[in-house]
Amino acid sequence: MSERLTIAVDAMGGDHAPDMVIRGLALARERYPHVRYILFGDEARVGPLLERMPQAAEVSEFRHTPDAISNDAKPSIALRSGRQSSMRLAINAVADGEAGGVISAGNTGAYMATAKFALKTLSTIDRPAIVATTPSRRGDVVMLDLGANIECDAENLVQFAVMGEVFARIVLGIQKPTVGILNVGAEDLKGVDTVRLAASMLRQSALAATFHGFVEGNDITAGRVDVVVTDGFTGNVAIKTIEGAGQFMSGLLRDMFGSSWRSRLGYLLARPAVEYLRQSLDPRRYNGAMLVGLNGVAVKSHGGTDEIGFAHALGVAIDMVGNDINKKIREEFENFDFKGEKPPPAVAL
Amino acid sequence: MSERLTIAVDAMGGDHAPDMVIRGLALARERYPHVRYILFGDEARVGPLLERMPQAAEVSEFRHTPDAISNDAKPSIALRSGRQSSMRLAINAVADGEAGGVISAGNTGAYMATAKFALKTLSTIDRPAIVATTPSRRGDVVMLDLGANIECDAENLVQFAVMGEVFARIVLGIQKPTVGILNVGAEDLKGVDTVRLAASMLRQSALAATFHGFVEGNDITAGRVDVVVTDGFTGNVAIKTIEGAGQFMSGLLRDMFGSSWRSRLGYLLARPAVEYLRQSLDPRRYNGAMLVGLNGVAVKSHGGTDEIGFAHALGVAIDMVGNDINKKIREEFENFDFKGEKPPPAVAL
Repeated sequence: MSERLTIAVDAMGGDHAPDMVIRGLALARERYPHVRYILFGDEARVGPLLERMPQAAEVSEFRHTPDAISNDAKPSIALRSGRQSSMRLAINAVADGEAGGVISAGNTGAYMATAKFALKTLSTIDRPAIVATTPSRRGDVVMLDLGANIECDAENLVQFAVMGEVFARIVLGIQKPTVGILNVGAEDLKGVDTVRLAASMLRQSALAATFHGFVEGNDITAGRVDVVVTDGFTGNVAIKTIEGAGQFMSGLLRDMFGSSWRSRLGYLLARPAVEYLRQSLDPRRYNGAMLVGLNGVAVKSHGGTDEIGFAHALGVAIDMVGNDINKKIREEFENFDFKGEKPPPAVAL
Repeated sequence: MSERLTIAVDAMGGDHAPDMVIRGLALARERYPHVRYILFGDEARVGPLLERMPQAAEVSEFRHTPDAISNDAKPSIALRSGRQSSMRLAINAVADGEAGGVISAGNTGAYMATAKFALKTLSTIDRPAIVATTPSRRGDVVMLDLGANIECDAENLVQFAVMGEVFARIVLGIQKPTVGILNVGAEDLKGVDTVRLAASMLRQSALAATFHGFVEGNDITAGRVDVVVTDGFTGNVAIKTIEGAGQFMSGLLRDMFGSSWRSRLGYLLARPAVEYLRQSLDPRRYNGAMLVGLNGVAVKSHGGTDEIGFAHALGVAIDMVGNDINKKIREEFENFDFKGEKPPPAVAL
């Protein structure tokens, strides 16, 4: 690409917006000096911040938007009455071809509904999904759906598997990513019909060779597979459970080193290693989930993140646009061989 | 109680059975000298172990059983053809009043199906659930269902809430335990109809005052509530995800302290605190899930555990029998005020 890569930014989304958004842009500029941003937000609040942070202002084009979507807005209401919101206009910039991708730390449901409406789903895909990476014993693991589809059928899961596999290949650079479906046991007869039917379909598909079968909750951070496929309810609970467990253990670690003078001295000696551990587990490093399956790159940042986390999510958006991920997913689906018919339904327990 | 407390033990269940079972009994004897066991298993394998471990033999009455349920047996098959199995006969000992409770580290599905058949569900409860505790920032948290009911309706969830609340009160000694339903967001409009209807029912029930509403995955280890209620699919994934995250972090901790001579020295200094941390996170300490809602105490140990974990699970069974947990759950249900009618179904998103 000879053109500069452009990202549309919802400056009003997130608990600490717009401040953390503008700070995040300033941080991202150091890592991605070639990227420019179109910033959508309230002039009265964003204007002064840009004046104070010329590093962000210099790479941004600012556009005033009268509205913002609140965190508790219903998706349907946000879609109907949010036409002049920062979120909607940022998404429109991708639909109109002005930007290669969009990022928001705002209301997830509203963002998904609006992105689906404005960008449209890829023609070969029934439902978009939310995908992100999470740390494991064997490197980063791709996980989807993280909350876009609270209820899923077997075909949705199969499509998530294909999208996740492409994501792992293109974004993480894994040559032949293995794929597992999250279930309550590894044996074939375990679980609800949906996951068993999806497994049976994948075993007859072009992914058969790299499809591992079922994985369990503990297999996620064990890195048993490169791609973990699940419905949006279970995926959302699982990813937040991992985050929570990480926070819990970091807290214990802190308590541990503060518990006596010997421990504090031990901490001082082990500090480089402890800091490395803390950084490896820092949830901000894993911030930035992508809405896959749309005609355009849309990245969701955690609502509660700070500028460091937002800058990481910007990095994800830039990666996705730079790698032309959506084009690759579309091509993959066009060539994907589901081997004709669906298998008969799995037998209930 | 003047009688000695008796636990029926399936000696053949678990990856390292019967060895770890007999060793576990020997360990448990030190902590619970007043308890006796009826041991069911294969004489050829259990006999020599008992000879070698008189500490276990002295508190046990051994009964030979010709069969054992395999880990991959379907529950329906185990129920039909396992009438002479160690698992079935151990459960029967509770049904017949010979033992106050039963424990097995064997096939979970078979155990649940057999226990339901032989012990029967409490008359006021539709479906039994699997309940266990997990560590959190604010002490132990009760979580259910962990896998007995892969699909649940709102009334099942409400009943799990009541059973979990009694469990937290009686077993953990929390005076007014708070209860939350696991969901993809804390807001009322989030999630599938089932969880929203269950929340609406709980708000009109006798638990209204201590019902917190929805909690998310990260709230489990944050200890946001004392009791986390969910369906068996999500609960199973969540509890195993927490276990996996714990193993992952313990591994990182080990790597961290081994990464340089400074870190190793730091470890030596901080060792008491590190060991305390490791013990707090040791999954064996949290081994022993209970099948609640049955006419009899049935405890499930992790299949992969060792004797230390099995001894902990024995402790859970002894606690449940000693506290007469089932009688208390039954009484609670008899007096529980659901305030008459069910509310109208929740509005879909």
